[in-house]
Amino acid sequence: MAIDRGLEARLKAIEARLQMLEDDRAIRELLARYGFNADYGRAKEYVDLYTEDGVMNLGTIVTRGVGYEGIQRWEGKRQLMEFITDPRAHKAIEGRCMHVQGNNLVTYIKGNEAVAESYSIVLLREENDTIVRSAGFNHWTLRKVNSKWLIKERKRRAIGGEEYREVITATKA
Amino acid sequence: MAIDRGLEARLKAIEARLQMLEDDRAIRELLARYGFNADYGRAKEYVDLYTEDGVMNLGTIVTRGVGYEGIQRWEGKRQLMEFITDPRAHKAIEGRCMHVQGNNLVTYIKGNEAVAESYSIVLLREENDTIVRSAGFNHWTLRKVNSKWLIKERKRRAIGGEEYREVITATKA
Amino acid sequence: MAIDRGLEARLKAIEARLQMLEDDRAIRELLARYGFNADYGRAKEYVDLYTEDGVMNLGTIVTRGVGYEGIQRWEGKRQLMEFITDPRAHKAIEGRCMHVQGNNLVTYIKGNEAVAESYSIVLLREENDTIVRSAGFNHWTLRKVNSKWLIKERKRRAIGGEEYREVITATKA
Repeated sequence: MAIDRGLEARLKAIEARLQMLEDDRAIRELLARYGFNADYGRAKEYVDLYTEDGVMNLGTIVTRGVGYEGIQRWEGKRQLMEFITDPRAHKAIEGRCMHVQGNNLVTYIKGNEAVAESYSIVLLREENDTIVRSAGFNHWTLRKVNSKWLIKERKRRAIGGEEYREVITATKA
Repeated sequence: MAIDRGLEARLKAIEARLQMLEDDRAIRELLARYGFNADYGRAKEYVDLYTEDGVMNLGTIVTRGVGYEGIQRWEGKRQLMEFITDPRAHKAIEGRCMHVQGNNLVTYIKGNEAVAESYSIVLLREENDTIVRSAGFNHWTLRKVNSKWLIKERKRRAIGGEEYREVITATKA
Repeated sequence: MAIDRGLEARLKAIEARLQMLEDDRAIRELLARYGFNADYGRAKEYVDLYTEDGVMNLGTIVTRGVGYEGIQRWEGKRQLMEFITDPRAHKAIEGRCMHVQGNNLVTYIKGNEAVAESYSIVLLREENDTIVRSAGFNHWTLRKVNSKWLIKERKRRAIGGEEYREVITATKA
């Protein structure tokens, strides 16, 4: 039996709404996994959350005199692997740090392209105290490749200073 | 062709479940946007997340001697605009602060009315350190107007002291 | 009228996708409620988020000399009730603390079994300052009982030290 046209339209609308909710869930999961993969020392899995030409674009992160000064950019999986395994960067605090994404918000999804905003917070254990190491505004450009959402570009700017305005310009209310 | 009654009931149940998930998503998005709009200096967009008669009801926020003492209340868009653009309040830390909502939980949705609970955390950059400026319990009363979820009342009480018990009374396990 | 086989398969696929999204939502809600029930003094509701044989398995939590040293384990509702009402533990900071779950990620759902990962952060008000009291990696084993998701085991390890590797081993990228 052929499905009549009214019913077919109704089913298609239902399936499109489901797809939107599933994409939203998958992207929020990607932002969560991003922190776990970094903090749990899964370098390959961390890098594989990016597209082949994926870019990480970070602003100044200086805590108690240690960190990056100014805008830094890593492009492609080889550079991203260098970043995540650099003994002076993440590796120096692995096991003592926690990367949390807050206010995760998917602002745009259309087909295989999406945009998300989030706040990133890094907590660090130092002796008996746990401190906030850094906090930043994030703008994520995402692409679905083979049914899997990946990061095309992560742009992150610390709170404080003026660099953060670049992230704001990119976001939509 | 008319759809038979069994099929119609099944489609209606599916559509109602979808609507519930979409409302839950929209409300969680509202809580995320609330922080972005404040922190990114979008005063109009911040105010427009409230209903025309929207109320913000805050308890004591005092950090290192600066802030509000006791219960404060802003009602309607004009007062909310005064709050968000007050040079002594949010504007004094804009760019150096981050408003994060945690444990976002929609506890009730029925038609155009909803209730949500959350924890609000404000991070602040001071010199080279990032500190927790304040942390509070929140009870949100929400209303859907023209298909868009808006804030009817935000009640927030800082952790510490006794004021917070009022929020607890309003929440459901 | 009997529904034809193609339509029946399509409806069943839609309903299965909806169920997955609803389970994901319910589990994320469980993680949020967990913090509220503890912080708002709802001991019975806190314990009732666990299965009858539920286990909480915590690692060292020491902040400024106060807390648990080494792996601790509470099994079953009676022991969990002892934990949450112990005047030397949570009760000692209730009203001044906030338990936030971050990066909430449901990594596995099949029928009535599920696994989730999260980061737990405890904020504490001390005089005029709010500090991060502790931060930990969490692995949650969950079971659906009478249509309600409950905690079968919560394993939590603080950042810092070596204990946390046990949580990592249990997680999937």
